[in-house]
Amino acid sequence: MDAASIHLVEDVLLVAIQEDITDTDILDLQDVLSERVSAEGARGVVIDISTLEIVDTFVGRVIAQLANIANLLDAETFVVGMRPAVAMTLVELGMHLPETRTALSLTHAMQRLRAAAGG
Amino acid sequence: MDAASIHLVEDVLLVAIQEDITDTDILDLQDVLSERVSAEGARGVVIDISTLEIVDTFVGRVIAQLANIANLLDAETFVVGMRPAVAMTLVELGMHLPETRTALSLTHAMQRLRAAAGG
Repeated sequence: MDAASIHLVEDVLLVAIQEDITDTDILDLQDVLSERVSAEGARGVVIDISTLEIVDTFVGRVIAQLANIANLLDAETFVVGMRPAVAMTLVELGMHLPETRTALSLTHAMQRLRAAAGG
Repeated sequence: MDAASIHLVEDVLLVAIQEDITDTDILDLQDVLSERVSAEGARGVVIDISTLEIVDTFVGRVIAQLANIANLLDAETFVVGMRPAVAMTLVELGMHLPETRTALSLTHAMQRLRAAAGG
């Protein structure tokens, strides 16, 4: 899958979503990510959406679902790199992602995951 | 924009809403605030509505949305200075602002943000 890259760093799966991701790709990503979280015993997942300049309800919902699935598999999950316009759109669409943790950047998310592991 | 002032203090954006803010102003504020939270990496947002003597559903909804957008951008958000009459109106209008954190005053909100940063 070229529409997203997944890398394992310090037991954390980093998922970089590409800007040209399609609806089909993002559903495939849900399958692939679930398998990898489970297979690699990842303790965290960081989903980087900084390439996304716009979102619709479908993408918003799938990202929320990705985070929820990873949480259920016991991987603490952060969405990072959300652009201001994307945050505004999600709120206007009535999607508050209440169960999704956001962090400003990958660095911030990794710091919090390390703090959680050390604590 | 004169209808609201925004100042950065200790990584926290303080937003003071003026009493004569119009519906158009408050929508502009949503854009400006989203951009600034992201650009300055603010870890908190405090929205001071002490000048507002009355609110309608529109203003109530936009304030709730402001708080939700800032939360999505990883800034802990407080609404401060809500007058009793405003709280009563919001409840009567059926707006419970479930995801909006309120604090009595700016001082209380800053204390909680400092405690969160230190913890």
